[in-house]
Formats: sequence, structure tokens, C-alpha cells
Amino acid sequence: MTTARRDTYTPETLLSVAVQVFNERGYDGTSMEHLSKAAGISKSSIYHHVAGKEELLRRAVSRALDGLFAVLEEPGALGGRAVERVEYVTRRTVEVLLAELPYVTLLLRVRGNTRTERWALERRREFDHAVADLLKAAAAEGDLRTDVDSRLATRLLFGMVNSLVEWYRPYPGADHSQLADAVVHMAFDGLRTNTT
Amino acid sequence: MTTARRDTYTPETLLSVAVQVFNERGYDGTSMEHLSKAAGISKSSIYHHVAGKEELLRRAVSRALDGLFAVLEEPGALGGRAVERVEYVTRRTVEVLLAELPYVTLLLRVRGNTRTERWALERRREFDHAVADLLKAAAAEGDLRTDVDSRLATRLLFGMVNSLVEWYRPYPGADHSQLADAVVHMAFDGLRTNTT
Repeated sequence: MTTARRDTYTPETLLSVAVQVFNERGYDGTSMEHLSKAAGISKSSIYHHVAGKEELLRRAVSRALDGLFAVLEEPGALGGRAVERVEYVTRRTVEVLLAELPYVTLLLRVRGNTRTERWALERRREFDHAVADLLKAAAAEGDLRTDVDSRLATRLLFGMVNSLVEWYRPYPGADHSQLADAVVHMAFDGLRTNTT
Repeated sequence: MTTARRDTYTPETLLSVAVQVFNERGYDGTSMEHLSKAAGISKSSIYHHVAGKEELLRRAVSRALDGLFAVLEEPGALGGRAVERVEYVTRRTVEVLLAELPYVTLLLRVRGNTRTERWALERRREFDHAVADLLKAAAAEGDLRTDVDSRLATRLLFGMVNSLVEWYRPYPGADHSQLADAVVHMAFDGLRTNTT
């Protein structure tokens, strides 16, 4: 873990260190002492930037949530047939997850013990509902199969997408769009070649 | 959590209590004291059955692994085109996961801090490789798309399947085969209706 000298510290570098520590030790298992050691600055210097670890958590999961919700406002998510919109949202969700990997990882590990965690879980549910609504609309338009319930499809879709935080390790020059393509192909067109 | 009187205890009931406690507290966070309290029997009674908590972990993850590996020996996994075999294995993997939910949940949460955990991770990898090999063979036979790498497809497939332990809650009379169908439909045929 990199440390920075006190005078080079910004709220952003502190946040990035905090997210690493939260992901390694779990939010519950992280103390201000751990954060102070990892950041290489005193606890009072941390308190100069934030009120406590819960504020760091809120800022970190907000970054992930803002990235995800912004996708829903993009033109590709707003125009066209529902099936195209939900494919677009799936692809962009993967891209945001990969671009903000530590932040989304933290978001997906949130448990619900504090107010901030419960708020984050609630926002995640809102995002999932938005995707479920799109899947439902696409099924109603006849573009998606109706023998898989849209709520179940949403859970399986996010099961696939969210598993990326468990095994994907970014490398320099990684092509996120290829990975996003693979997820979209598998979820919407299936692995089978279209010989039917 | 149910408790049983000492004289009704069998290794199986002790195992089922231990798995519940491991899943709730994490294996690392579980002491013999926790197990003794949850089981309602003394620590020495537990030691009468097993050498310690690592033996309980080994028995529990063995039950999950034995269930999964048995699938690979079933006729449906051994005969026919690779695509049919891998669809069969996927369906049966979901069914085993649901039938042995607490045991597979524990298996999927294993971290690798002890010899037993590292052995369990190694066995999981073997199972994943067997599925990856089937996907590869099915792609070589022309039945699966080749633009999604078989290793990536395996990870996404297990991402979808394994997510079930996070959100699926069994209820009396639940039809596991429907859920297994949904997973197979989505992974192999995709959510899209076949209008092409």
C-alpha cells in the first residue's frame, strides 16, 4: 500500500486508501487506527478531512452509486426499444464496475449494520429495480423470453456481473469493452450458437 | 437455532449445527465455545465426535464437494454432445447447490487460511476446470460461440450459479428444477427471444 506525506494529502487520496483498507479488513473490522497507519498520517489529520470512518464509507459508496445511476441517464439507456436499453445498461454497468473496481467492490460488500450501509443497500435495490423494470418492459415488447421471471433474470444477471469483483484483476491496457461484450452476449444471446 | 439433548446427538446433527454457525460467524470467527453453545452440548462432548473445528469444516465442505463431483459421473454428464453434457452439469450443479445450500454456501466462502481450506479451494478449482473443459469441447464441436473465451464463460456461469447462495431462500415445496431451468436458459440460450 502506498503512503503519502501529510502535506500531499487530499480527500481523494485518503478516500482511495480507506477503500483499500475497508476491502481488505471489512468495514466493521477497520478502526481509525488502521486507517491512520495505512495512510501514514495521524488520526487527527484524518479528522481534519472527515468526521469519521462512516463518512469515508459514505463518500466511497457514493462514488460507486453515482457512477451506476449516471448510466441510467445516458442517451443509450433512455431511447429505443427496452431490450436495447437494458443491453446498454448492462454493458455500461460492467464498464463502471471495472473502472471503479475498489469502490463497487466495497458497495457490494456492504452489510447493513450502520445507517450509511442501510442507505447504500437501499440505493443498490433501487438500481436493481430500474434494471428489472427494463427487463420486464423488454419482455412485454416481445423481445425477451417470458419463461424466466424478470426479477429472477435481474438477480442472475447481477450475479454474473457482480462476480467480476471476486475474480477480475485489472491489468495495464485491459480492454473493458471486451469483457462487457462477453457479459452481454452470454446474458442476452446465450453461449449457444444460433443454429436453430 | 435448534438444540438437541446430548444423548440424541449424532455426528450429522453436530455437523449441521456447525455449518450454520460457520456461515453466520465465518469459519475464522467461530470458536469451539461458539459451537458448544449453539449445539447445546459441552466442548468435551464435541471432542468425542471430532478432533476439532477444522475436522467439522472438512466434513462439511466434503459433503458439498462430493455432491458436486458426483454430478460429473452421472450418465447425463458422460454421454452425448459436449453442449448437452455441460447443460446437464449446469442444471445438476444448481440442483445440488440448492439441495445442500448451507454446505455449498460454506464451500463458496472458504478463504484459504488453513490446510483444509486450501484443499477445498483446490477441489473447487478442479470442478471449475471440468466445466471449462466441457465448454471448450462444446465450442470445438461448433455448438457454443467462440467469441466468449471458455475460461471467461466458466467464470460468468459460476458467477450466476453461485450468486444463488447470496439471495435464494428455500421455502417448503420450492421447485428447484424451475430455478435450474432459468439458469440454463439464460446461460445457453440467452434472455432474448429467438427472432433471428
